[in-house]
Amino acid sequence: MAGRLILSIDGMGGDNAPRIVIEGIDIQARRRGNVHYLVHGDPARLQPLLDAHPHAKAVCEIRAAESVIGMDAKPSQALRQGRGSSLWNAIQSVENKEAAAIVSAGSTGALMAISMFRLRTMEGVHRPALVARWPTQKGMAAVLDVGANVQADAEQLVEFAIMGEAFQRALTGKERPTVGLLNVGSEDQKGHEEIRAAAKLLREAGLDIAVHGFVEGDDIPKGTADVVVTDGFTGNIALKTAEGMARTIGGYVKDAMMDGVLAKIGALFAYGALARFKNKVNPGNSNGAMFLGLNGLVVKSHGSADGPSYAAALEVAALMANSHYQEEIARNLARFAAAERAMAAELAARDAS
Amino acid sequence: MAGRLILSIDGMGGDNAPRIVIEGIDIQARRRGNVHYLVHGDPARLQPLLDAHPHAKAVCEIRAAESVIGMDAKPSQALRQGRGSSLWNAIQSVENKEAAAIVSAGSTGALMAISMFRLRTMEGVHRPALVARWPTQKGMAAVLDVGANVQADAEQLVEFAIMGEAFQRALTGKERPTVGLLNVGSEDQKGHEEIRAAAKLLREAGLDIAVHGFVEGDDIPKGTADVVVTDGFTGNIALKTAEGMARTIGGYVKDAMMDGVLAKIGALFAYGALARFKNKVNPGNSNGAMFLGLNGLVVKSHGSADGPSYAAALEVAALMANSHYQEEIARNLARFAAAERAMAAELAARDAS
Repeated sequence: MAGRLILSIDGMGGDNAPRIVIEGIDIQARRRGNVHYLVHGDPARLQPLLDAHPHAKAVCEIRAAESVIGMDAKPSQALRQGRGSSLWNAIQSVENKEAAAIVSAGSTGALMAISMFRLRTMEGVHRPALVARWPTQKGMAAVLDVGANVQADAEQLVEFAIMGEAFQRALTGKERPTVGLLNVGSEDQKGHEEIRAAAKLLREAGLDIAVHGFVEGDDIPKGTADVVVTDGFTGNIALKTAEGMARTIGGYVKDAMMDGVLAKIGALFAYGALARFKNKVNPGNSNGAMFLGLNGLVVKSHGSADGPSYAAALEVAALMANSHYQEEIARNLARFAAAERAMAAELAARDAS
Repeated sequence: MAGRLILSIDGMGGDNAPRIVIEGIDIQARRRGNVHYLVHGDPARLQPLLDAHPHAKAVCEIRAAESVIGMDAKPSQALRQGRGSSLWNAIQSVENKEAAAIVSAGSTGALMAISMFRLRTMEGVHRPALVARWPTQKGMAAVLDVGANVQADAEQLVEFAIMGEAFQRALTGKERPTVGLLNVGSEDQKGHEEIRAAAKLLREAGLDIAVHGFVEGDDIPKGTADVVVTDGFTGNIALKTAEGMARTIGGYVKDAMMDGVLAKIGALFAYGALARFKNKVNPGNSNGAMFLGLNGLVVKSHGSADGPSYAAALEVAALMANSHYQEEIARNLARFAAAERAMAAELAARDAS
């Protein structure tokens, strides 16, 4: 893959696929000329779209796939019946090392199930994690896990920290992103046992990570830490709550601006400013979540993405593929394994003496 | 306590106590004339405030307390050294049945520790829960637990549902508030084992509760269910995340309105509408959380409350004291205990056959 980057695309996944897929590639092709796309899907639907989008056409190769996995397919169903679908084949292009990453706007459950099955977890990672990008007062944070696992023990939380830190560096270019553990207070004795154990491991395992310590829910939008680590249950609920708050508040602002003559005049003048703000705050608008910890890069676009936001997911894939993500996390995972061996040996020695 | 309602007040707890306490009582006295207050604290500081607030003066009785528990006191410290403080004595007035409820704007940890120690948990309740009022698109929801316990098993979640449902009825007057369990999806097989078991118990235990089923994070601000049940870890993080989002978005709206000449003109006209919206959305602005499940009503005001919001916490205490909360939850707890006995007997019979 030296020189030209190749991305594998599930051309048929998404509420408005394949249209938004090709529109997204067309937008992205004008920004990054040096990326090539293997677009898996139905040639009869993809070819006319490419003919209408010359920038995309110049960088795409269609790979015929006979079926599509529905947006509401269950993971088990996708695994049993998904072979030959655009999603399955797109993942196989990564498995075969033809492409550096896969991007799909299809079913999250199907993407997770098939990519785990085909790509398998990286050595040293117990469970993959879904990471979301979350707009904060200071920029963009990475929050994980937001739903791949319903629980996580201390070791898994440390692995999430290692993966999230490298992800955040690849995406933002910040050399040493800070890592916080989501908790119900910032004092050492707060929270579940797993979280306190994870905090101790993070501090003592000799990882090359800037550890911030515990953060609370309101620290996420504040941007207190660049990476926020939690289990998939808590992370999913925090993320959905935030998305719901952003939508609800957006609605209130709109109502408030229509409430009375003065406000209506105000809204007339302030319309542009309010439209800008709406896109800025909702983590649901930052496209390009990733499924981290597999032997291959797996990017999830929103199912309801439009062309520009699909292009944002393609950019996430490109940034990750051009980064040293795999080496960085392999290094920290090795440090972590060594520290755990040392701690186990110490415990054994103490028990023996 | 027939006829006149008596509330016990921690006169010294809170960032701006005792001033805001007396201001709050003064406001509330004009709305509810029939409530009497036992105000525990330093007479030298309370008396001049009462002299300046004649409505409050008419309904307050000062009870001298020799000390104050600091806002950052640890629960263990409060338990050891809190005897004789305004908070301790205020709780004792409830324990002695002199007052129907205690209201404090002091340290949450100290309030929880001392009220658990003095009032003890109600029969049939394993652990008390902290309930928050959360403004939604449809009104006001009750969310619990938001931080009294870091975890909760299925039985405890059912107890939270029973307590939260009666709380919500007392506060909103809605006859049959709906109860949702916070989860990462609405399908039956989603989430932790405890949550799935709690859902089954809620449906099958013959409780007099309108069960909605699972809700997700974004359902809280939407108002999908009137009562949202979760463990204290998840609830605390959802609540803090929502508060942080509301503050962050409030800041963005302000910035957006100052961004450019047109927006500034708009802001000039829309100022009132925007000020109204700000108070409407943040769950942190709904004063009067409660610590449910004790032999006595315990209301927690924000530490930073001002007079009007302290009055809102007093109103929560009055609504609860005038409700049939204790009888309602005792009835559902008895139903729950009976259902659990029946299920245990059924299991035993199955094992024996």
